[in-house]
Amino acid sequence: MSQKPSPNPQPTRDELDLLLYQSRIDRPVRMKIPELNREDRPRHVIFGRQFSVDMLESVASTADEIRQISKSREGQDFLINLLHHKRAMLYFTQPSTRTFLSFMSACQILGITCNEVRNPATSSETKGETRFDSLRMFSSYFDLIIMRSPVARLAESCAYLMNDLETSGNRSVPIINAGSGADQHPTQALLDVYTLQRTFQFTDPRDSPISTRFEQLVRDYPSLCKGLSGKVYAFCGDIGRGRTVRSLATLLAHYKNVTLAFVSPDHPKLVMGDDLRQHLQNCNVQILEVDSLEAPLEGKPLIEQLDALYMTRIQNEHNNQEDEAAFAQIDFGRYKLTTGLVARMKRYAPILHPFPRDQHFKEIPTEIDDDPRAMYFRQARNGMWARASLLAHVFSVEHQISRFFRDQYGDWQGTAGTLEARLAR
Amino acid sequence: MSQKPSPNPQPTRDELDLLLYQSRIDRPVRMKIPELNREDRPRHVIFGRQFSVDMLESVASTADEIRQISKSREGQDFLINLLHHKRAMLYFTQPSTRTFLSFMSACQILGITCNEVRNPATSSETKGETRFDSLRMFSSYFDLIIMRSPVARLAESCAYLMNDLETSGNRSVPIINAGSGADQHPTQALLDVYTLQRTFQFTDPRDSPISTRFEQLVRDYPSLCKGLSGKVYAFCGDIGRGRTVRSLATLLAHYKNVTLAFVSPDHPKLVMGDDLRQHLQNCNVQILEVDSLEAPLEGKPLIEQLDALYMTRIQNEHNNQEDEAAFAQIDFGRYKLTTGLVARMKRYAPILHPFPRDQHFKEIPTEIDDDPRAMYFRQARNGMWARASLLAHVFSVEHQISRFFRDQYGDWQGTAGTLEARLAR
Amino acid sequence: MSQKPSPNPQPTRDELDLLLYQSRIDRPVRMKIPELNREDRPRHVIFGRQFSVDMLESVASTADEIRQISKSREGQDFLINLLHHKRAMLYFTQPSTRTFLSFMSACQILGITCNEVRNPATSSETKGETRFDSLRMFSSYFDLIIMRSPVARLAESCAYLMNDLETSGNRSVPIINAGSGADQHPTQALLDVYTLQRTFQFTDPRDSPISTRFEQLVRDYPSLCKGLSGKVYAFCGDIGRGRTVRSLATLLAHYKNVTLAFVSPDHPKLVMGDDLRQHLQNCNVQILEVDSLEAPLEGKPLIEQLDALYMTRIQNEHNNQEDEAAFAQIDFGRYKLTTGLVARMKRYAPILHPFPRDQHFKEIPTEIDDDPRAMYFRQARNGMWARASLLAHVFSVEHQISRFFRDQYGDWQGTAGTLEARLAR
Repeated sequence: MSQKPSPNPQPTRDELDLLLYQSRIDRPVRMKIPELNREDRPRHVIFGRQFSVDMLESVASTADEIRQISKSREGQDFLINLLHHKRAMLYFTQPSTRTFLSFMSACQILGITCNEVRNPATSSETKGETRFDSLRMFSSYFDLIIMRSPVARLAESCAYLMNDLETSGNRSVPIINAGSGADQHPTQALLDVYTLQRTFQFTDPRDSPISTRFEQLVRDYPSLCKGLSGKVYAFCGDIGRGRTVRSLATLLAHYKNVTLAFVSPDHPKLVMGDDLRQHLQNCNVQILEVDSLEAPLEGKPLIEQLDALYMTRIQNEHNNQEDEAAFAQIDFGRYKLTTGLVARMKRYAPILHPFPRDQHFKEIPTEIDDDPRAMYFRQARNGMWARASLLAHVFSVEHQISRFFRDQYGDWQGTAGTLEARLAR
Repeated sequence: MSQKPSPNPQPTRDELDLLLYQSRIDRPVRMKIPELNREDRPRHVIFGRQFSVDMLESVASTADEIRQISKSREGQDFLINLLHHKRAMLYFTQPSTRTFLSFMSACQILGITCNEVRNPATSSETKGETRFDSLRMFSSYFDLIIMRSPVARLAESCAYLMNDLETSGNRSVPIINAGSGADQHPTQALLDVYTLQRTFQFTDPRDSPISTRFEQLVRDYPSLCKGLSGKVYAFCGDIGRGRTVRSLATLLAHYKNVTLAFVSPDHPKLVMGDDLRQHLQNCNVQILEVDSLEAPLEGKPLIEQLDALYMTRIQNEHNNQEDEAAFAQIDFGRYKLTTGLVARMKRYAPILHPFPRDQHFKEIPTEIDDDPRAMYFRQARNGMWARASLLAHVFSVEHQISRFFRDQYGDWQGTAGTLEARLAR
Repeated sequence: MSQKPSPNPQPTRDELDLLLYQSRIDRPVRMKIPELNREDRPRHVIFGRQFSVDMLESVASTADEIRQISKSREGQDFLINLLHHKRAMLYFTQPSTRTFLSFMSACQILGITCNEVRNPATSSETKGETRFDSLRMFSSYFDLIIMRSPVARLAESCAYLMNDLETSGNRSVPIINAGSGADQHPTQALLDVYTLQRTFQFTDPRDSPISTRFEQLVRDYPSLCKGLSGKVYAFCGDIGRGRTVRSLATLLAHYKNVTLAFVSPDHPKLVMGDDLRQHLQNCNVQILEVDSLEAPLEGKPLIEQLDALYMTRIQNEHNNQEDEAAFAQIDFGRYKLTTGLVARMKRYAPILHPFPRDQHFKEIPTEIDDDPRAMYFRQARNGMWARASLLAHVFSVEHQISRFFRDQYGDWQGTAGTLEARLAR
């Protein structure tokens, strides 16, 4: 209705605003990183590739400290007061209960007060307001904007808007991308990596100086080493339309000597996109694209060779009529996990899933939930700690956390697994 | 859409999940109570019958202490810090502003941070997630789940899920039932009982050692005694479809020598259900089922004999066409309170209503609001205190509250009425 | 459905409730003010005319203190604890993201816990509850009600309801009007005035004892004086349907020797309403009603003469078919700002807009955003401080704020501009 006075076929202001930043969006990633990170710390969090391996290790280490500190009431009080003076806007115009609640929890752990706009229909946009005007409003009221949008690159352009405001002496706040269009979901990748970091310490509460879980595993798997390098990661299901696969694969490419296997039906919408393949090749990652978990890798079926399995949901909500017809010919049963398959996996290999899983498709049946390798419920809780840690880094309080941790638990610093082993001693 | 790949007429995972617990749901209530209570304290709050009279007295006593403590700024600060480190999920897929806000307030009084999911359409369920997967997500992020659902027994089966998770060494949190299907609404019953407990102390701010309100009342009503035992409780209106009636009647049956009168039109949907009647008979409660407040009880019209009157709204939103036709023949005017009826009630008899009342039906016209016996607005505030008290018991901080109370107001302990009298002295 | 039992053409209880207060609503404003203010402090905030010039100065002064105090972590902690024990209900049945978030932020700055009801369809009203019953429920649970409603005068009648409850010894809480029907939006006017108060100090961080921005301006504009009196204020666009114009004009009429110019198309829905014109004439304000910013004032075009320009959005969402036809004949281009027009304005004259602005109509094109006179983004942040200050006055903690401020920054008191100048020295 409000468009009536000027019914023009010209681009809208919203479209022009995005065009304004097009040339900066089109730059190679390495040129963008200095605009997003500052002094090796995220200023904004827009895409996974801005995280260096050092940053990933540092975020994991702070996450471990936060989860340990939060076990005592004294520690919880310390954390709750840390950023009690900050207020966040969770601007989620693309719905996602899980990611939304995870960020809420992460904020609350550090005492950040949360506000939300989830239904764009209730917002000023119905009165003709541009997205950038909305964003500037949020930056007037709040100290942090966590945004999830169906519009690709919107979060990225908002980060540039904030940087430009700062340059011109105006108020500017950090932007966290909680999912932007089909392209990126950097904090999901962060929590996936954090889950793998913890898993690949191979520690156990019952570890002792005499014997550890790692030593026991090495007997059966002599080439096993700690950490993310030198491992085989398999992704299974909807590779083409899952931005979590894209984001995680990009991060794993930072590590040395990894093999990434992508298992999906051979349909253009479901296999890996050309840009991701190109990027991984540039990183000298070994890639395997197959249509079954039984496909061979170094002489054995992939299911028996993989070090970690990342299952995904088939995102049928994006199907068009043509897809429905084509998909009817595909045997999707090959992309569902079974207890039989799990029994053949390595004894330590974690099963991840970004969740939600689909109760109708059953890519992971509930029978597998009790297997100690099933990590998908723990992933949710890891995500909360990883996001809290990330916020601590954005607001530069990670050193305060380390200091408190050392005061409480001594000045030894380590990754989660070994820390727990040490605390158990 | 996401169902396409497996269009089976088999039961859904959600249905199977409920079936999984069917045998535990079908047990007699007394066998379930040990799964819900622990050391005489609620672990989960699922149905009214899990509250013993001792627990009801203890919850009322803590509620009295909280409301008194919260009158000073120092007390408020004590309360706000009590559970400041806890975070709650209010999962309300059946809408209810009143119950929702009451729980929010109760949480906030104790410093619990609240999160909410109210519209199931925004949740992961639209992506094919099961309810149990959603619940486990909530239990990953939060320390408490308060849930209201149109699905009968869902809260109960979630409590069993949590217990099973605990048994298998996983994270598990308390479940509070804020209304589950047509069967139970235990915290509404709790606040109704709390309102009656306060009312039946017969105290008044102007009570003095020389004369108390109770002494004055006893002159006119020689058989009057304090407390909930030995009283006539009348429920009026929609008995069959009101779960608040069912829950409160169940709790009152715990008390000695009570008469429960049910006043409703003689229609199968509006009279008491067979299961409730059976239960009350097993408890040796004296029951009266009549179709008018003028029906005789011990020689006098019920309206003149009752000690407390519980009015209800006719829940016409559940009518089907057949009901509409049948109800057109009923004189519903008999189930509305009037100033004339109120004038005939005992001088102390409280009028309760679970609210909202219906402005079109007018079961309680606004003219009655100023009568000192009208308790329905106070019930709302009582509900907030009673729920805060319940949460304090669930998290085992009720003794901390008592200690603070004694430090501030001396070590005398008593029920609300006498406490206020004492504070007024 | 719930209306079925009594399908009467009689007025509803909601309508009767409003009628109940009609005679009090119909009184002249000066007779109402004693019901809304207490000891020169707002008890409820209902309409702009209840603010005296003294109150406006006091609210501005506290707002300045709050924004200064909040620059340090110590100050933020002081503020967050100030009203940490209070809980607010934001009852917004008329949507407004901007006003809603501004009030949320204002509450959070002072530590007030926020609760919200925004969608009336989820509320008890669908079960036949009256608005007054809902309000009493809110007043049972919360310490403050901030309400925005499409129903004219609803906030005012709720204030009277609260006063009546207090008189009869019941619980009663302050009501803040965040927009009520088409008539009033008092806190928007408050923030507009606060923005003008700050602007018309003519200070600058680089002010020094040797030279200030004001001294420099006076060279070019010899008659310039500080403060709101003696200035020309122009309102441009949709005068008839913008309640922000109405509310601000009413407040400006309190100041001496002001000229108010209203620039709008000559259409009965778009020009000033008769009641506002009458009121301004009674206040002896000089009024100019014209259809262009080029219209002459004292021999020169208005755009060159005005001291402040208040742009507005054409509220086409209220158009009916007849309006659409009539408006098609109007040249709306005259009610859009351009860089050319801005270039002709006085060097200090602020451009205000209540926002959102309309990206399709373009009443303020984004090219103007970088002009130092563009105040509309700063208005948003000013609104947050002004509302926080107002809440501090409602809860009588403004003296505590002043005390903290003096302890930190010395006992000198002043308006924002001079304060900043002083702090910069």
